[in-house]
Amino acid sequence: MTTDIAFVVYDEMTALDLVGAFDAVTRVETMGIADLDWDVLARTPRATATGDLRFEPTEVGTPPGAYDAVVVPGGTGTRALTEDGATVDWIATAADCDLITSVCTGSLLLGAAGLLDGCRATTHPSAYDALAAYCTVVEERVVRDGDRVTARGVSSSIDLGLELVELLADAGARETVRERMDYPHDRRRELAE
Amino acid sequence: MTTDIAFVVYDEMTALDLVGAFDAVTRVETMGIADLDWDVLARTPRATATGDLRFEPTEVGTPPGAYDAVVVPGGTGTRALTEDGATVDWIATAADCDLITSVCTGSLLLGAAGLLDGCRATTHPSAYDALAAYCTVVEERVVRDGDRVTARGVSSSIDLGLELVELLADAGARETVRERMDYPHDRRRELAE
Repeated sequence: MTTDIAFVVYDEMTALDLVGAFDAVTRVETMGIADLDWDVLARTPRATATGDLRFEPTEVGTPPGAYDAVVVPGGTGTRALTEDGATVDWIATAADCDLITSVCTGSLLLGAAGLLDGCRATTHPSAYDALAAYCTVVEERVVRDGDRVTARGVSSSIDLGLELVELLADAGARETVRERMDYPHDRRRELAE
Repeated sequence: MTTDIAFVVYDEMTALDLVGAFDAVTRVETMGIADLDWDVLARTPRATATGDLRFEPTEVGTPPGAYDAVVVPGGTGTRALTEDGATVDWIATAADCDLITSVCTGSLLLGAAGLLDGCRATTHPSAYDALAAYCTVVEERVVRDGDRVTARGVSSSIDLGLELVELLADAGARETVRERMDYPHDRRRELAE
């Protein structure tokens, strides 16, 4: 069975929030570990990350709830989007996903969409107070609460990606992908040593 | 004085190779530390990274040598590009840059362009043998040899970025950016503790 994943992009997102997780997760498919399919999904035909890094989505407008899993990056754009009803409603469709995940202030979008109600979650340390409006804030690098998985600041995107590799495949796949990414800092690996 | 940087993109590059460094370096400007300008530079109007992640360049065709610094990511696309004379000649113009840098197998492109002659450099561990055709291979995460700075595998893009922040600004800026990126693994920081 193929797992369909939506990697959400939007204006003034932080590109690394997305790309660290994208790299880890998509290797599950490209390294032949398990069958995944994915879209780079936006509500607009182009999404320009902070720094004028322009992404062209592979899919525009489809609700995230049409996928099995969703990854929502953070960035300064979240400040406006959490106040934008159409975007919040669109993100809220992810309630139907089996895995609902975010990096950095992407969790504020999940929270505004009601997807973190009653959950433990995390965000960039500068946004702990903002996230506390929606859920119980946990100051860890990756926080899993059932089918919600949230990661802390920007570079924790890689850690979220490796966590998702384990959930989509297994711990062996996580180690295989970690090695290919040349990432010596995976927490699971550190605990094992 | 504004430093102009070229972030090179091409088909079948590894997106994280670029974006880790892009995130760190561009924060020097967006956090008001020093004046930087940059382009996402390609020879083609669109560059699709592995996994169908599509980047739209901000500049097409201009030679990297027109910039003060160049960042060349790696990826499976390098295998064909090191055999492509037009691309190699285009990369070779970077000889005029003050800083010539790469992540992962991006160093194979630098090497094919003659930019690593007589240098110490690194690449993804799976490509050490290939890189040895061009220069002295060093198995470290970031290798600086004068104005050549190369980083090892995929995730070392972040480490390259932090090294460049220090070169473009100073060690204090490196720590400021590291903290904002929520990256606890910077080697310079580890050595200081």
